[in-house]
Amino acid sequence: MSKSNPIPKYYSIAPEIINGIKEKKYLPGMKIPSENEIIDLYKMSNTTARKALQEIENGGWVQRIKGKGTFVHKHGVIRSADRILSFTNNMLEMGYTPGTKVLNTSVENKGYTDTINGRKYYMKGPVYKIQRLRLADDIPMMLETRYVSAELCPKIINRPLNGSLWEIYSGKYGRKIKEDHQMLSTVMIDRETCGYFNLPEPIPGILVRGVAFCGKEIILEMEESLYRGDKYSFAVRAYQS
Amino acid sequence: MSKSNPIPKYYSIAPEIINGIKEKKYLPGMKIPSENEIIDLYKMSNTTARKALQEIENGGWVQRIKGKGTFVHKHGVIRSADRILSFTNNMLEMGYTPGTKVLNTSVENKGYTDTINGRKYYMKGPVYKIQRLRLADDIPMMLETRYVSAELCPKIINRPLNGSLWEIYSGKYGRKIKEDHQMLSTVMIDRETCGYFNLPEPIPGILVRGVAFCGKEIILEMEESLYRGDKYSFAVRAYQS
Repeated sequence: MSKSNPIPKYYSIAPEIINGIKEKKYLPGMKIPSENEIIDLYKMSNTTARKALQEIENGGWVQRIKGKGTFVHKHGVIRSADRILSFTNNMLEMGYTPGTKVLNTSVENKGYTDTINGRKYYMKGPVYKIQRLRLADDIPMMLETRYVSAELCPKIINRPLNGSLWEIYSGKYGRKIKEDHQMLSTVMIDRETCGYFNLPEPIPGILVRGVAFCGKEIILEMEESLYRGDKYSFAVRAYQS
Repeated sequence: MSKSNPIPKYYSIAPEIINGIKEKKYLPGMKIPSENEIIDLYKMSNTTARKALQEIENGGWVQRIKGKGTFVHKHGVIRSADRILSFTNNMLEMGYTPGTKVLNTSVENKGYTDTINGRKYYMKGPVYKIQRLRLADDIPMMLETRYVSAELCPKIINRPLNGSLWEIYSGKYGRKIKEDHQMLSTVMIDRETCGYFNLPEPIPGILVRGVAFCGKEIILEMEESLYRGDKYSFAVRAYQS
Protein backbone atom coordinates (compact mmCIF):
# COMPACT_ATOMS: atom_id res chain seq x y z
CA MET A 1 0.00 0.00 0.00
CA SER A 2 1.52 3.34 -1.02
CA LYS A 3 1.81 6.17 1.49
CA SER A 4 -0.14 8.53 -0.72
CA ASN A 5 -3.09 6.12 -0.73
CA PRO A 6 -3.93 5.13 2.84
CA ILE A 7 -7.17 3.40 1.84
CA PRO A 8 -6.72 -0.38 1.59
CA LYS A 9 -6.62 -1.34 -2.07
CA TYR A 10 -9.39 -3.99 -1.85
CA TYR A 11 -11.88 -1.21 -1.15
CA SER A 12 -11.43 0.09 -4.65
CA ILE A 13 -11.23 -3.20 -6.53
CA ALA A 14 -14.40 -4.85 -5.09
CA PRO A 15 -16.69 -1.95 -6.19
CA GLU A 16 -15.02 -1.98 -9.60
CA ILE A 17 -15.91 -5.65 -10.14
CA ILE A 18 -19.40 -5.14 -8.63
CA ASN A 19 -19.95 -2.30 -11.10
CA GLY A 20 -18.80 -4.63 -13.85
CA ILE A 21 -21.60 -7.03 -12.80
CA LYS A 22 -24.18 -4.23 -12.60
CA GLU A 23 -23.15 -2.91 -16.00
CA LYS A 24 -23.22 -6.43 -17.50
CA LYS A 25 -19.51 -6.44 -18.29
CA TYR A 26 -19.62 -9.65 -16.28
CA LEU A 27 -22.79 -11.47 -17.38
CA PRO A 28 -24.82 -13.96 -15.31
CA GLY A 29 -22.99 -17.29 -15.30
CA MET A 30 -19.68 -15.66 -16.22
CA LYS A 31 -16.49 -16.07 -14.23
CA ILE A 32 -15.06 -13.00 -12.54
CA PRO A 33 -11.25 -12.69 -12.18
CA SER A 34 -9.65 -15.24 -9.85
CA GLU A 35 -7.40 -14.40 -6.90
CA ASN A 36 -4.32 -14.89 -9.07
CA GLU A 37 -5.73 -12.83 -11.91
CA ILE A 38 -6.59 -10.00 -9.50
CA ILE A 39 -3.03 -10.13 -8.11
CA ASP A 40 -1.61 -9.92 -11.65
CA LEU A 41 -4.13 -7.42 -12.97
CA TYR A 42 -4.16 -4.98 -10.06
CA LYS A 43 -0.70 -5.61 -8.60
CA MET A 44 -1.91 -6.41 -5.12
CA SER A 45 -1.07 -8.92 -2.42
CA ASN A 46 -2.92 -12.22 -2.19
CA THR A 47 -4.45 -11.15 1.17
CA THR A 48 -5.88 -8.02 -0.44
CA ALA A 49 -7.13 -9.96 -3.47
CA ARG A 50 -8.77 -12.56 -1.22
CA LYS A 51 -10.47 -9.83 0.85
CA ALA A 52 -11.82 -8.21 -2.31
CA LEU A 53 -13.29 -11.50 -3.53
CA GLN A 54 -14.78 -12.11 -0.08
CA GLU A 55 -16.37 -8.67 -0.14
CA ILE A 56 -17.94 -9.31 -3.57
CA GLU A 57 -19.26 -12.67 -2.36
CA ASN A 58 -20.62 -11.18 0.89
CA GLY A 59 -22.44 -8.56 -1.17
CA GLY A 60 -24.35 -11.44 -2.78
CA TRP A 61 -23.14 -10.80 -6.31
CA VAL A 62 -21.30 -14.02 -6.99
CA GLN A 63 -21.01 -17.64 -6.03
CA ARG A 64 -17.71 -19.40 -5.43
CA ILE A 65 -17.47 -22.94 -6.72
CA LYS A 66 -14.53 -24.85 -5.23
CA GLY A 67 -11.86 -25.65 -7.80
CA LYS A 68 -13.81 -23.93 -10.57
CA GLY A 69 -13.84 -20.22 -9.80
CA THR A 70 -16.17 -17.39 -8.81
CA PHE A 71 -19.28 -16.92 -10.97
CA VAL A 72 -21.95 -14.24 -11.33
CA HIS A 73 -25.31 -15.60 -10.12
CA LYS A 74 -27.40 -17.21 -12.84
CA HIS A 75 -31.00 -18.18 -12.07
CA GLY A 76 -33.09 -18.70 -15.19
CA VAL A 77 -34.04 -15.56 -17.06
CA ILE A 78 -34.86 -12.36 -15.25
CA ARG A 79 -36.59 -9.60 -17.16
CA SER A 80 -36.65 -6.07 -15.85
CA ALA A 81 -40.28 -5.08 -16.18
CA ASP A 82 -39.63 -1.40 -15.55
CA ARG A 83 -37.24 -0.78 -18.42
CA ILE A 84 -37.88 -0.48 -22.14
CA LEU A 85 -35.98 -3.60 -23.09
CA SER A 86 -36.33 -5.88 -26.10
CA PHE A 87 -36.29 -9.67 -25.74
CA THR A 88 -33.11 -9.70 -27.83
CA ASN A 89 -31.26 -7.31 -25.52
CA ASN A 90 -32.66 -9.04 -22.43
CA MET A 91 -31.22 -12.35 -23.64
CA LEU A 92 -27.82 -10.83 -24.42
CA GLU A 93 -27.81 -9.26 -20.94
CA MET A 94 -28.54 -12.62 -19.35
CA GLY A 95 -25.77 -14.30 -21.33
CA TYR A 96 -27.98 -16.27 -23.73
CA THR A 97 -28.07 -16.35 -27.52
CA PRO A 98 -31.48 -15.06 -28.62
CA GLY A 99 -33.42 -16.72 -31.43
CA THR A 100 -36.78 -16.16 -33.11
CA LYS A 101 -39.09 -18.39 -35.11
CA VAL A 102 -41.84 -16.53 -37.01
CA LEU A 103 -44.98 -18.67 -36.71
CA ASN A 104 -47.61 -16.64 -38.49
CA THR A 105 -48.44 -13.18 -39.81
CA SER A 106 -51.82 -11.80 -40.84
CA VAL A 107 -53.74 -8.60 -41.42
CA GLU A 108 -56.58 -7.86 -39.00
CA ASN A 109 -58.88 -5.42 -40.72
CA LYS A 110 -61.16 -5.01 -37.74
CA GLY A 111 -58.30 -3.75 -35.55
CA TYR A 112 -57.45 -4.90 -32.05
CA THR A 113 -58.68 -4.04 -28.59
CA ASP A 114 -57.66 -5.03 -25.06
CA THR A 115 -58.15 -3.75 -21.53
CA ILE A 116 -54.84 -3.17 -19.79
CA ASN A 117 -54.53 -1.99 -16.21
CA GLY A 118 -58.18 -0.98 -16.14
CA ARG A 119 -58.16 1.02 -19.36
CA LYS A 120 -59.48 -0.20 -22.66
CA TYR A 121 -57.22 0.46 -25.63
CA TYR A 122 -58.23 0.26 -29.26
CA MET A 123 -56.07 0.11 -32.38
CA LYS A 124 -58.07 0.75 -35.48
CA GLY A 125 -57.62 -1.63 -38.42
CA PRO A 126 -55.81 -2.65 -40.45
CA VAL A 127 -53.42 -4.04 -37.86
CA TYR A 128 -50.66 -6.59 -38.50
CA LYS A 129 -50.74 -9.62 -36.26
CA ILE A 130 -47.33 -11.26 -35.85
CA GLN A 131 -46.91 -14.50 -33.92
CA ARG A 132 -43.41 -15.58 -33.01
CA LEU A 133 -41.65 -18.02 -30.75
CA ARG A 134 -38.67 -16.52 -28.96
CA LEU A 135 -35.75 -18.71 -27.94
CA ALA A 136 -32.73 -18.56 -25.65
CA ASP A 137 -29.87 -20.88 -26.59
CA ASP A 138 -32.44 -22.73 -28.75
CA ILE A 139 -34.81 -23.28 -25.81
CA PRO A 140 -38.32 -21.85 -26.46
CA MET A 141 -38.95 -19.21 -23.80
CA MET A 142 -41.87 -17.09 -24.90
CA LEU A 143 -44.75 -17.23 -27.34
CA GLU A 144 -45.62 -13.74 -28.45
CA THR A 145 -48.41 -12.13 -30.42
CA ARG A 146 -47.79 -8.56 -31.48
CA TYR A 147 -50.33 -6.25 -33.07
CA VAL A 148 -48.62 -3.51 -35.07
CA SER A 149 -50.25 -0.43 -36.54
CA ALA A 150 -50.34 -0.73 -40.34
CA GLU A 151 -50.70 3.02 -40.59
CA LEU A 152 -47.47 3.65 -38.67
CA CYS A 153 -45.46 0.70 -40.03
CA PRO A 154 -46.82 -0.03 -43.53
CA LYS A 155 -45.91 -3.44 -45.00
CA ILE A 156 -43.80 -4.43 -41.98
CA ILE A 157 -44.88 -8.07 -42.44
CA ASN A 158 -43.02 -8.16 -45.78
CA ARG A 159 -39.76 -7.61 -43.93
CA PRO A 160 -37.62 -10.24 -42.19
CA LEU A 161 -39.13 -10.49 -38.70
CA ASN A 162 -36.66 -12.69 -36.91
CA GLY A 163 -35.06 -9.94 -34.83
CA SER A 164 -36.20 -7.09 -32.62
CA LEU A 165 -39.40 -5.47 -33.94
CA TRP A 166 -38.54 -2.36 -31.94
CA GLU A 167 -35.36 -2.04 -33.99
CA ILE A 168 -37.41 -2.21 -37.20
CA TYR A 169 -39.81 0.46 -35.89
CA SER A 170 -36.94 2.83 -35.23
CA GLY A 171 -34.56 1.83 -38.03
CA LYS A 172 -37.07 1.49 -40.88
CA TYR A 173 -39.96 3.71 -39.83
CA GLY A 174 -38.24 6.25 -37.60
CA ARG A 175 -40.60 5.47 -34.71
CA LYS A 176 -39.38 4.95 -31.19
CA ILE A 177 -41.26 3.37 -28.30
CA LYS A 178 -41.50 6.07 -25.64
CA GLU A 179 -43.79 4.41 -23.15
CA ASP A 180 -44.89 0.86 -22.48
CA HIS A 181 -47.74 -0.17 -20.17
CA GLN A 182 -47.93 -3.81 -19.26
CA MET A 183 -50.14 -6.07 -17.23
CA LEU A 184 -48.69 -9.28 -15.83
CA SER A 185 -50.98 -12.11 -14.86
CA THR A 186 -50.67 -15.84 -14.58
CA VAL A 187 -52.38 -18.61 -16.55
CA MET A 188 -51.95 -22.32 -17.10
CA ILE A 189 -50.15 -23.04 -20.36
CA ASP A 190 -52.68 -25.31 -22.07
CA ARG A 191 -51.85 -28.65 -23.68
CA GLU A 192 -51.86 -27.28 -27.21
CA THR A 193 -49.49 -24.44 -26.33
CA CYS A 194 -47.22 -26.81 -24.36
CA GLY A 195 -46.13 -28.19 -27.74
CA TYR A 196 -44.41 -24.91 -28.61
CA PHE A 197 -42.38 -25.12 -25.42
CA ASN A 198 -41.66 -28.89 -25.64
CA LEU A 199 -43.40 -29.24 -22.28
CA PRO A 200 -44.85 -32.69 -21.51
CA GLU A 201 -47.42 -31.28 -19.05
CA PRO A 202 -49.21 -27.94 -18.49
CA ILE A 203 -47.32 -25.58 -16.20
CA PRO A 204 -48.13 -22.02 -15.11
CA GLY A 205 -47.01 -19.23 -17.39
CA ILE A 206 -46.89 -15.47 -17.13
CA LEU A 207 -49.13 -13.65 -19.54
CA VAL A 208 -47.95 -10.16 -20.44
CA ARG A 209 -50.45 -7.91 -22.14
CA GLY A 210 -49.15 -4.54 -23.13
CA VAL A 211 -49.60 -1.36 -25.08
CA ALA A 212 -46.63 0.60 -26.43
CA PHE A 213 -46.74 4.23 -27.46
CA CYS A 214 -44.50 6.13 -29.85
CA GLY A 215 -46.01 9.47 -28.84
CA LYS A 216 -48.68 10.85 -26.57
CA GLU A 217 -51.63 8.45 -26.85
CA ILE A 218 -50.29 7.16 -30.21
CA ILE A 219 -50.33 3.37 -30.03
CA LEU A 220 -47.63 1.74 -32.14
CA GLU A 221 -48.21 -1.81 -30.99
CA MET A 222 -50.06 -3.99 -28.54
CA GLU A 223 -48.99 -7.43 -27.44
CA GLU A 224 -50.11 -10.57 -25.69
CA SER A 225 -47.16 -12.77 -24.82
CA LEU A 226 -46.88 -15.95 -22.82
CA TYR A 227 -43.66 -16.53 -20.88
CA ARG A 228 -42.94 -19.99 -19.52
CA GLY A 229 -43.13 -19.83 -15.75
CA ASP A 230 -40.38 -22.36 -15.08
CA LYS A 231 -37.71 -20.23 -16.73
CA TYR A 232 -38.84 -16.65 -16.29
CA SER A 233 -39.00 -14.10 -13.51
CA PHE A 234 -39.79 -10.43 -13.70
CA ALA A 235 -37.81 -7.86 -11.79
CA VAL A 236 -39.41 -4.70 -10.49
CA ARG A 237 -37.96 -1.84 -8.53
CA ALA A 238 -39.97 0.80 -6.73
CA TYR A 239 -38.67 3.94 -5.11
CA GLN A 240 -40.17 6.33 -2.61
CA SER A 241 -40.21 9.82 -4.04
CA MET B 1 -72.10 27.83 -25.74
CA SER B 2 -71.08 31.37 -24.73
CA LYS B 3 -69.30 33.67 -27.18
CA SER B 4 -66.35 34.18 -24.82
CA ASN B 5 -65.75 30.44 -24.74
CA PRO B 6 -65.56 29.14 -28.30
CA ILE B 7 -64.30 25.69 -27.21
CA PRO B 8 -67.17 23.20 -27.00
CA LYS B 9 -67.93 22.58 -23.33
CA TYR B 10 -67.66 18.77 -23.52
CA TYR B 11 -63.94 19.10 -24.16
CA SER B 12 -63.43 20.39 -20.65
CA ILE B 13 -65.79 18.09 -18.80
CA ALA B 14 -64.51 14.77 -20.23
CA PRO B 15 -60.89 15.37 -19.09
CA GLU B 16 -62.19 16.43 -15.68
CA ILE B 17 -63.97 13.11 -15.20
CA ILE B 18 -61.03 11.16 -16.68
CA ASN B 19 -58.74 12.88 -14.18
CA GLY B 20 -61.19 11.88 -11.46
CA ILE B 21 -60.70 8.24 -12.54
CA LYS B 22 -56.90 8.57 -12.69
CA GLU B 23 -56.81 10.22 -9.27
CA LYS B 24 -59.12 7.54 -7.83
CA LYS B 25 -61.91 10.00 -7.04
CA TYR B 26 -63.94 7.56 -9.11
CA LEU B 27 -62.81 4.08 -8.04
CA PRO B 28 -62.95 0.91 -10.15
CA GLY B 29 -66.52 -0.34 -10.23
CA MET B 30 -67.91 3.07 -9.28
CA LYS B 31 -70.54 4.91 -11.29
CA ILE B 32 -69.53 8.19 -12.93
CA PRO B 33 -72.16 10.96 -13.30
CA SER B 34 -75.04 10.15 -15.67
CA GLU B 35 -76.10 12.30 -18.61
CA ASN B 36 -78.75 13.97 -16.47
CA GLU B 37 -76.36 14.54 -13.58
CA ILE B 38 -73.82 16.10 -15.95
CA ILE B 39 -76.55 18.40 -17.35
CA ASP B 40 -77.51 19.48 -13.81
CA LEU B 41 -73.97 19.63 -12.45
CA TYR B 42 -72.29 21.45 -15.29
CA LYS B 43 -75.26 23.31 -16.80
CA MET B 44 -74.84 21.96 -20.28
CA SER B 45 -77.12 20.68 -23.04
CA ASN B 46 -77.93 16.98 -23.31
CA THR B 47 -76.04 16.80 -26.64
CA THR B 48 -72.90 18.14 -24.97
CA ALA B 49 -73.31 15.83 -21.97
CA ARG B 50 -73.80 12.84 -24.26
CA LYS B 51 -70.70 13.74 -26.28
CA ALA B 52 -68.63 14.02 -23.09
CA LEU B 53 -69.75 10.57 -21.91
CA GLN B 54 -69.00 9.16 -25.36
CA GLU B 55 -65.51 10.64 -25.24
CA ILE B 56 -64.82 9.09 -21.81
CA GLU B 57 -66.06 5.74 -23.08
CA ASN B 58 -64.01 5.98 -26.30
CA GLY B 59 -60.94 6.69 -24.18
CA GLY B 60 -61.46 3.26 -22.63
CA TRP B 61 -61.97 4.49 -19.08
CA VAL B 62 -65.52 3.31 -18.48
CA GLN B 63 -68.10 0.81 -19.50
CA ARG B 64 -71.75 1.71 -20.15
CA ILE B 65 -74.29 -0.79 -18.94
CA LYS B 66 -77.72 -0.21 -20.45
CA GLY B 67 -80.31 0.96 -17.93
CA LYS B 68 -77.73 0.90 -15.11
CA GLY B 69 -75.23 3.66 -15.82
CA THR B 70 -71.58 4.19 -16.72
CA PHE B 71 -69.00 2.45 -14.57
CA VAL B 72 -65.23 2.67 -14.14
CA HIS B 73 -63.62 -0.58 -15.37
CA LYS B 74 -63.18 -3.20 -12.68
CA HIS B 75 -61.19 -6.34 -13.46
CA GLY B 76 -60.04 -8.15 -10.35
CA VAL B 77 -57.25 -6.49 -8.45
CA ILE B 78 -54.46 -4.68 -10.22
CA ARG B 79 -51.34 -3.88 -8.27
CA SER B 80 -48.86 -1.32 -9.53
CA ALA B 81 -45.55 -3.10 -9.20
CA ASP B 82 -43.52 0.02 -9.77
CA ARG B 83 -44.85 2.06 -6.88
CA ILE B 84 -44.21 1.80 -3.16
CA LEU B 85 -47.74 0.80 -2.24
CA SER B 86 -49.07 -1.15 0.72
CA PHE B 87 -51.67 -3.88 0.29
CA THR B 88 -54.03 -1.77 2.41
CA ASN B 89 -53.74 1.26 0.13
CA ASN B 90 -53.87 -0.88 -2.99
CA MET B 91 -57.18 -2.36 -1.81
CA LEU B 92 -58.63 1.06 -1.01
CA GLU B 93 -57.57 2.28 -4.46
CA MET B 94 -59.30 -0.66 -6.09
CA GLY B 95 -62.47 -0.02 -4.14
CA TYR B 96 -62.22 -2.99 -1.75
CA THR B 97 -62.24 -3.18 2.03
CA PRO B 98 -58.88 -4.58 3.13
CA GLY B 99 -58.61 -7.15 5.90
CA THR B 100 -55.79 -9.07 7.57
CA LYS B 101 -55.62 -12.33 9.51
CA VAL B 102 -52.37 -12.87 11.44
CA LEU B 103 -51.53 -16.57 11.08
CA ASN B 104 -48.24 -16.92 12.88
CA THR B 105 -45.28 -14.97 14.26
CA SER B 106 -41.87 -16.29 15.27
CA VAL B 107 -38.29 -15.27 15.90
CA GLU B 108 -35.68 -16.61 13.47
CA ASN B 109 -32.33 -16.41 15.21
CA LYS B 110 -30.37 -17.63 12.23
CA GLY B 111 -31.59 -14.73 10.07
CA TYR B 112 -32.97 -14.93 6.55
CA THR B 113 -31.47 -15.08 3.11
CA ASP B 114 -32.87 -15.05 -0.43
CA THR B 115 -31.61 -14.38 -3.95
CA ILE B 116 -33.63 -11.67 -5.65
CA ASN B 117 -33.03 -10.55 -9.24
CA GLY B 118 -29.68 -12.30 -9.30
CA ARG B 119 -28.35 -10.86 -6.06
CA LYS B 120 -28.21 -12.71 -2.76
CA TYR B 121 -29.44 -10.74 0.23
CA TYR B 122 -28.88 -11.64 3.85
CA MET B 123 -30.59 -10.33 6.99
CA LYS B 124 -28.70 -11.28 10.09
CA GLY B 125 -30.67 -12.74 12.99
CA PRO B 126 -32.72 -12.31 15.00
CA VAL B 127 -35.39 -11.64 12.41
CA TYR B 128 -39.15 -11.64 13.02
CA LYS B 129 -41.14 -13.88 10.73
CA ILE B 130 -44.74 -12.75 10.31
CA GLN B 131 -47.26 -14.80 8.34
CA ARG B 132 -50.54 -13.17 7.43
CA LEU B 133 -53.49 -13.72 5.16
CA ARG B 134 -54.63 -10.55 3.40
CA LEU B 135 -58.25 -10.14 2.38
CA ALA B 136 -60.34 -7.94 0.10
CA ASP B 137 -64.03 -7.70 1.03
CA ASP B 138 -63.42 -10.85 3.15
CA ILE B 139 -62.02 -12.81 0.18
CA PRO B 140 -58.50 -14.18 0.83
CA MET B 141 -56.22 -12.62 -1.79
CA MET B 142 -52.66 -13.09 -0.68
CA LEU B 143 -50.64 -15.20 1.74
CA GLU B 144 -47.64 -13.24 2.90
CA THR B 145 -44.52 -14.02 4.87
CA ARG B 146 -42.54 -11.01 5.99
CA TYR B 147 -39.12 -11.08 7.60
CA VAL B 148 -38.53 -7.96 9.67
CA SER B 149 -35.23 -6.83 11.17
CA ALA B 150 -35.40 -7.17 14.97
CA GLU B 151 -32.59 -4.67 15.29
CA LEU B 152 -34.50 -1.98 13.40
CA CYS B 153 -37.99 -2.80 14.71
CA PRO B 154 -37.53 -4.32 18.19
CA LYS B 155 -40.52 -6.21 19.62
CA ILE B 156 -42.72 -5.45 16.60
CA ILE B 157 -44.41 -8.86 16.98
CA ASN B 158 -45.86 -7.71 20.34
CA ARG B 159 -47.85 -5.06 18.52
CA PRO B 160 -51.19 -5.49 16.75
CA LEU B 161 -50.22 -6.63 13.26
CA ASN B 162 -53.54 -6.53 11.44
CA GLY B 163 -52.83 -3.40 9.41
CA SER B 164 -50.03 -2.05 7.23
CA LEU B 165 -46.59 -3.07 8.56
CA TRP B 166 -45.09 -0.18 6.62
CA GLU B 167 -47.23 2.19 8.70
CA ILE B 168 -45.85 0.60 11.89
CA TYR B 169 -42.28 0.95 10.61
CA SER B 170 -42.74 4.65 9.99
CA GLY B 171 -45.20 5.50 12.80
CA LYS B 172 -43.60 3.49 15.63
CA TYR B 173 -39.96 3.16 14.59
CA GLY B 174 -39.48 6.24 12.41
CA ARG B 175 -38.27 4.11 9.51
CA LYS B 176 -39.49 4.62 5.98
CA ILE B 177 -39.17 2.23 3.05
CA LYS B 178 -37.13 4.08 0.45
CA GLU B 179 -36.57 1.35 -2.08
CA ASP B 180 -38.17 -1.99 -2.84
CA HIS B 181 -36.78 -4.64 -5.18
CA GLN B 182 -39.12 -7.41 -6.15
CA MET B 183 -39.03 -10.54 -8.24
CA LEU B 184 -42.27 -11.88 -9.68
CA SER B 185 -42.53 -15.49 -10.71
CA THR B 186 -45.31 -18.00 -11.04
CA VAL B 187 -45.96 -21.22 -9.13
CA MET B 188 -48.81 -23.64 -8.64
CA ILE B 189 -50.64 -23.00 -5.37
CA ASP B 190 -50.32 -26.43 -3.72
CA ARG B 191 -53.23 -28.32 -2.15
CA GLU B 192 -52.30 -27.38 1.40
CA THR B 193 -52.09 -23.68 0.58
CA CYS B 194 -55.36 -23.83 -1.41
CA GLY B 195 -57.12 -24.16 1.96
CA TYR B 196 -56.14 -20.61 2.90
CA PHE B 197 -57.74 -19.30 -0.28
CA ASN B 198 -60.84 -21.58 -0.13
CA LEU B 199 -59.79 -22.97 -3.50
CA PRO B 200 -61.06 -26.48 -4.33
CA GLU B 201 -58.22 -27.16 -6.78
CA PRO B 202 -54.64 -25.92 -7.30
CA ILE B 203 -54.39 -22.87 -9.55
CA PRO B 204 -51.37 -20.78 -10.60
CA GLY B 205 -50.32 -18.02 -8.27
CA ILE B 206 -47.83 -15.19 -8.46
CA LEU B 207 -44.95 -15.42 -6.03
CA VAL B 208 -43.46 -12.09 -5.06
CA ARG B 209 -40.11 -12.18 -3.35
CA GLY B 210 -38.75 -8.84 -2.30
CA VAL B 211 -36.29 -6.86 -0.29
CA ALA B 212 -37.12 -3.43 1.11
CA PHE B 213 -34.56 -0.88 2.20
CA CYS B 214 -34.93 2.01 4.64
CA GLY B 215 -31.56 3.45 3.65
CA LYS B 216 -28.65 2.68 1.38
CA GLU B 217 -28.11 -1.09 1.62
CA ILE B 218 -30.00 -1.20 4.96
CA ILE B 219 -32.55 -3.99 4.72
CA LEU B 220 -35.64 -3.38 6.82
CA GLU B 221 -37.65 -6.35 5.60
CA MET B 222 -37.75 -9.16 3.11
CA GLU B 223 -40.87 -10.92 1.96
CA GLU B 224 -42.16 -13.96 0.16
CA SER B 225 -45.83 -13.53 -0.72
CA LEU B 226 -48.19 -15.63 -2.76
CA TYR B 227 -50.94 -13.82 -4.70
CA ARG B 228 -53.81 -15.83 -6.11
CA GLY B 229 -53.52 -15.78 -9.88
CA ASP B 230 -57.25 -15.76 -10.57
CA LYS B 231 -57.76 -12.39 -8.89
CA TYR B 232 -54.49 -10.53 -9.26
CA SER B 233 -52.64 -8.74 -12.01
CA PHE B 234 -49.55 -6.60 -11.77
CA ALA B 235 -49.23 -3.34 -13.64
CA VAL B 236 -45.88 -2.11 -14.87
CA ARG B 237 -44.97 1.01 -16.78
CA ALA B 238 -41.69 1.60 -18.56
CA TYR B 239 -40.49 4.82 -20.12
CA GLN B 240 -37.74 5.57 -22.57
CA SER B 241 -35.32 8.02 -21.05
